[in-house]
Amino acid sequence: MCREVLQILSLIGDKWSILVIGCLRDQTLRFGELHRAVTGISQRMLTLTLRQLERDGLLTRTVHPTVPPRVDYALTPLGTTLLDATTALAEWADTHREHIIDNRRSYDAAKPPRN
Amino acid sequence: MCREVLQILSLIGDKWSILVIGCLRDQTLRFGELHRAVTGISQRMLTLTLRQLERDGLLTRTVHPTVPPRVDYALTPLGTTLLDATTALAEWADTHREHIIDNRRSYDAAKPPRN
Repeated sequence: MCREVLQILSLIGDKWSILVIGCLRDQTLRFGELHRAVTGISQRMLTLTLRQLERDGLLTRTVHPTVPPRVDYALTPLGTTLLDATTALAEWADTHREHIIDNRRSYDAAKPPRN
Repeated sequence: MCREVLQILSLIGDKWSILVIGCLRDQTLRFGELHRAVTGISQRMLTLTLRQLERDGLLTRTVHPTVPPRVDYALTPLGTTLLDATTALAEWADTHREHIIDNRRSYDAAKPPRN
């Protein structure tokens, strides 16, 4: 698999990208709204994630000339095509969460840590 | 979204996890075969990725008592359920690769780097 695909996978597989894209399903949000919607993300990580997604053409950033400026984020058509793929992954994680936590517990109980 | 789902997304969204799981579709592979199949991965990163996937119950690690020992990796039924979700993401990245590279070029040409 070529280098660019690896690089794109690194970005879109990132948990924060998946969550940001999920929050923008069918709606435009402001920075502060996204910050509240994506629990646990820092302002800096949200800024970086939004900039990468904008650079890749997955979302648009619109600055409205108000005081203070209002900045809106929305998915592009390309970003919308990514939604289904990331949604499947997030749903998988949610569905199998308890099973995986049980597996981790069994693994840790059976094996001493290896370095 | 809860902490565990975030943590699971971090693991399964990782590009190396996606590629390792993809390589094990319908087949059992040895460490060296996986190392050759997943272009660009270091031995250490492959070891870490395999251990995390084993801990989560997504693959099995079978040691055969030969000299030297042969170690086989195969997907579990749970790992197989993850295949479709990750495949969709990898296919999306492959399909839209050129479009995204073009978008990055336009973005970088239009805007000076921001810090």
